[in-house]
Amino acid sequence: MMAPAIEQAIRAQCEQARASSRVLAAASPGQKDAALAAVARRLVADAGAVLEANRRDVASARERGLSEAMIDRLALDAPRLERMARGVLEVQALGDPVGEVEGMGRRPNGLLVGQVRVPLGVVAMVYESRPDVTVDAAVLCLKSGNAVVLRGGSEAAASNEALGAVVRAALVEAGLPADAVQLVPPGDRDAIRVLVGMTGLLDLVIPRGGEGLIRFVTEHARVPVIQHYQGVCHLFVDQGADVAMALALVVDGKAVRPGVCNALECLLVHEADAAALLAALGPVAAQHAVELRGCARTVALLPGVRPAADDDFGREFLAKVLAVKVVSGLDEALGHVARYGSGHTEAICTPSYASSQRWLREVDASCVLVNASTRFNDGGQLGLGAEIGISTTKLHAYGPMGLVSLTTKKWIVYGEGQTRG
Amino acid sequence: MMAPAIEQAIRAQCEQARASSRVLAAASPGQKDAALAAVARRLVADAGAVLEANRRDVASARERGLSEAMIDRLALDAPRLERMARGVLEVQALGDPVGEVEGMGRRPNGLLVGQVRVPLGVVAMVYESRPDVTVDAAVLCLKSGNAVVLRGGSEAAASNEALGAVVRAALVEAGLPADAVQLVPPGDRDAIRVLVGMTGLLDLVIPRGGEGLIRFVTEHARVPVIQHYQGVCHLFVDQGADVAMALALVVDGKAVRPGVCNALECLLVHEADAAALLAALGPVAAQHAVELRGCARTVALLPGVRPAADDDFGREFLAKVLAVKVVSGLDEALGHVARYGSGHTEAICTPSYASSQRWLREVDASCVLVNASTRFNDGGQLGLGAEIGISTTKLHAYGPMGLVSLTTKKWIVYGEGQTRG
Repeated sequence: MMAPAIEQAIRAQCEQARASSRVLAAASPGQKDAALAAVARRLVADAGAVLEANRRDVASARERGLSEAMIDRLALDAPRLERMARGVLEVQALGDPVGEVEGMGRRPNGLLVGQVRVPLGVVAMVYESRPDVTVDAAVLCLKSGNAVVLRGGSEAAASNEALGAVVRAALVEAGLPADAVQLVPPGDRDAIRVLVGMTGLLDLVIPRGGEGLIRFVTEHARVPVIQHYQGVCHLFVDQGADVAMALALVVDGKAVRPGVCNALECLLVHEADAAALLAALGPVAAQHAVELRGCARTVALLPGVRPAADDDFGREFLAKVLAVKVVSGLDEALGHVARYGSGHTEAICTPSYASSQRWLREVDASCVLVNASTRFNDGGQLGLGAEIGISTTKLHAYGPMGLVSLTTKKWIVYGEGQTRG
Repeated sequence: MMAPAIEQAIRAQCEQARASSRVLAAASPGQKDAALAAVARRLVADAGAVLEANRRDVASARERGLSEAMIDRLALDAPRLERMARGVLEVQALGDPVGEVEGMGRRPNGLLVGQVRVPLGVVAMVYESRPDVTVDAAVLCLKSGNAVVLRGGSEAAASNEALGAVVRAALVEAGLPADAVQLVPPGDRDAIRVLVGMTGLLDLVIPRGGEGLIRFVTEHARVPVIQHYQGVCHLFVDQGADVAMALALVVDGKAVRPGVCNALECLLVHEADAAALLAALGPVAAQHAVELRGCARTVALLPGVRPAADDDFGREFLAKVLAVKVVSGLDEALGHVARYGSGHTEAICTPSYASSQRWLREVDASCVLVNASTRFNDGGQLGLGAEIGISTTKLHAYGPMGLVSLTTKKWIVYGEGQTRG
């Protein structure tokens, strides 16, 4: 049970964010950009306070025995703050999506009707240990005219508070309300449950972190949620595919950053070329320390490969492990992806026009690629400039979410007294 | 508690819809249009079976003592079926949004990147008594390439089943899977709870009906929901507004169809012109049998008006009742709308350029109008051709939802072997 006092405190923060969102929505691009410039300046100027807070988080993480990998994600230093500041200026330099008018035209009765892009209003972010998310999320929300309620993890509590103070001070410096950025103190998951139940005060919740956190938010949310659970990404190597290209896509997808959501998890190989492709794959996988787990036909063609368990298909390994399956052709590959894919990223390597067209049309995923690495499903790589997350929720955001995904469109109507009758 | 057998049956229906959605998504515009033409033809050709089923629903409604207004909404006859068929042909004639490509361009590394419009996948509709929704929803979902799971009210059970059979037969006639349209038998609300909890099988739930139904769906959904609870629509009559225009907008908004969601519920009057405007409003309201409920200043200016209770502001009367409040100017009107509006439809009547610009920019509602009736917030009126509902959920659909609101965009990437490294 949540103490009523905490519930009231979270509600009060959401109400302050809601009130501030009116001001943010009406703020000019210049005013929002001034706030972002102030954030970047203060990240460097106020580095002392942020780094001091971060040292407390890191010390407490060591005491609690967190892994060095987690501590590395948590730890800040001056160069990291400078990189963060440069990232803020990159967002500042992006075009402001708010106010763009689309489809304006005159109706038969003379009404002038169109749609104008507007902020969502109040966005809540629920995330885990990395303190950079605090600044990234705040800055993307502010640039797109939204107020934001941030709820980071307890490991980064002091760092997040210090970074939040930087952003709030920058807002005040630019003449905007500090309350447009709210930090909900970390606590147990009950506080998340309360936060994501704030119907009428929040317009969207974006959870970022492990699958457990995302499922918890989805289960308890009473406001719209945009998220992805997993990235179970496939590459289908079609008949006649260039072997060198196929291997390069495997290495790029699996060996460079195996822990990210757009990494490759499963290779599907057309049976016509399976022998040659797998013979070439064996040594390349060994060279990059990638463990293969093969279907029966794969094992028959490439002796020594560990047989895949049933649940190795549809699995996000987050490690240098790759499931491999020989398929009879494009139809079986499409069926496999429809069954085991997570709607995230799916690639084909093919010389065939017909196969490429069917793949692009029939695969249901936020990003579908021909002859390119799954690792390109990323806001920066696809040209969005910055991303607040990747969505496999099929709403306005399907794929990387940039500034436009933090807005919607309202209808505007210019009349001269028209009635409908 | 829901019997496991019913839960299994609903899950099986959702799985059939999911499987069919792959076929629908890949269907050509011509094939989908052929299915719609067959629906229109069969609505007339199979009218006998539909009207027979409808007679059973109407008889049982009379037995259970439903009001004549409800029976009128339920009852079908040959002309109504012909109108339904014409509506289906109007949807057929609309452009197919699926496959439209946006923003295609080349990245620095040579990748050709764009977004293509795709169906959402499986849409669930939960609605109440009117059987026309069965055909409207099925046809809009099919045209936009979606499978649909329909759960109508028990009053229209036989009619919905007969209309569903018409649509399913039409799909088969066009070579498409009948299972793309599923009808969940009405029962108690537990069946709705089960349906809207089908994470991974449904992409969107659209509830249509009374506020109780919509809140129930929102409370229990574990998949995205798009809806509106209420339409609490305001008209602000600014200083210097044309009195005849203002009165025409009031009459159109309140007296023509007071029970609809875009009807007017509250009139805000600038204090500078309040005396003249209210003096003119009194007799017009009386003539149209509209009951006014005024703030203290309204009552002082127009003696005999019933004083408004506190909860008359922010209230959806769904009747010929209008709350009236004198405000000090635009700022107070904007504040009132921000506090009491439901994000649905908000209009201003003004001769002022500055007021009109601020209203359009600062009011947060799905449709914001200048010198036009709130009744124009409607898919047909705004040029969408047809609508499946009006959304005040601020996602891709904010306002009337037409075919495009039943789609999203996936990223497509054409490469020549690019890797990210």
